[in-house]
Amino acid sequence: MRVRNLPWAKDYLPTQPSYVAKPNEYKGRWKEILQVDTLHLEIGSGKGDYWLAMSEQYPNEGWIGLERNTSIAALALKKAEGSFQKNRLFICQDAKDLNEWFEKGELDVIHLNFSDPWPKKRNTKRRLTYRTFLEVYRNLLSDHGKVIMKTDNTQLFEFSLLEFQECRFHLEEVYLDFRKEDHPEDAISEYELKFMKQDHPIYRGIWRK
Amino acid sequence: MRVRNLPWAKDYLPTQPSYVAKPNEYKGRWKEILQVDTLHLEIGSGKGDYWLAMSEQYPNEGWIGLERNTSIAALALKKAEGSFQKNRLFICQDAKDLNEWFEKGELDVIHLNFSDPWPKKRNTKRRLTYRTFLEVYRNLLSDHGKVIMKTDNTQLFEFSLLEFQECRFHLEEVYLDFRKEDHPEDAISEYELKFMKQDHPIYRGIWRK
Repeated sequence: MRVRNLPWAKDYLPTQPSYVAKPNEYKGRWKEILQVDTLHLEIGSGKGDYWLAMSEQYPNEGWIGLERNTSIAALALKKAEGSFQKNRLFICQDAKDLNEWFEKGELDVIHLNFSDPWPKKRNTKRRLTYRTFLEVYRNLLSDHGKVIMKTDNTQLFEFSLLEFQECRFHLEEVYLDFRKEDHPEDAISEYELKFMKQDHPIYRGIWRK
Repeated sequence: MRVRNLPWAKDYLPTQPSYVAKPNEYKGRWKEILQVDTLHLEIGSGKGDYWLAMSEQYPNEGWIGLERNTSIAALALKKAEGSFQKNRLFICQDAKDLNEWFEKGELDVIHLNFSDPWPKKRNTKRRLTYRTFLEVYRNLLSDHGKVIMKTDNTQLFEFSLLEFQECRFHLEEVYLDFRKEDHPEDAISEYELKFMKQDHPIYRGIWRK
């Protein structure tokens, strides 16, 4: 997702109640702080549509959004301004440091929505479903934890099916045209809607560790 | 695939050199009879396009077609009439008896092309990728044997991804839009072409036992 640099973004973020400047200080205490039993992390939240909608739809579960781009993160928090909810938090950093912010087994669900496909072979390792990431997820997920991935990108989903298998995740559900049927349990972001309107299939997989 | 009943079919089949009336008599000897090192079986060959094209494209490998409908099998053998090749044979029977025709480990590749999706839940067990079939395949496949499946049916492919995993097959390659790129190594049947013209994606998976 590209967005022009917003000069106000950097100063704006710390003014928002759901913004977490130093996630490592929350390590091992996220559920306690959010007062929830179930903790979700969305990696690559973009403008926050999914994070916002899901945290409203499931108010008894905790939702952490993660977006490394400061300007995009600011847009997400702007959207959240009108409707403060105590079950959600937002981090603006790079996913490579996940291990420093979460304790082993602390997460119940990791969401990957329309992640950057990094189509070129030389960028394989940057894909959020590359095996080094999957091993980190495995470590941070609880015993029955799962990864839920949604994408419009055929190549990325093909790659991910093989990569999750390689890392011994168990494919529990798979949809090769997820929006063909109604799925009110799962929020539709603006970004997703764009692809649905183009009649492009949305792929979705749920893997258990 | 539906076709009207052809009254001449039953008498015609035994006149064809590639027709095998009693496959159980070939058990354990298919490679010897065909003089090949690699043995392919296509289950549900329909009008035989794939079986014909692949046996011509790979003349040093053995190709067995299987189609239970007598009229459709007759159409397949009619097509083959003009071009006799000693590396192919055809069986007109039901796939449920595979174990009686092949020795354990005798097959190298099993092909499933556009199999009947049996969409209703009560017919799950009839799908050619239902676990009881997969266990039979596993038993008949050689150590590095594989199943190659192609279909246009989303629901069937989703089902198959889960079912193969359940039976401990290893997904080696997966394509969610196989014909988006050129694949000269794999023949396109008339049936497949129909879906390609409708711009429907073709799914393909290769699983190793």
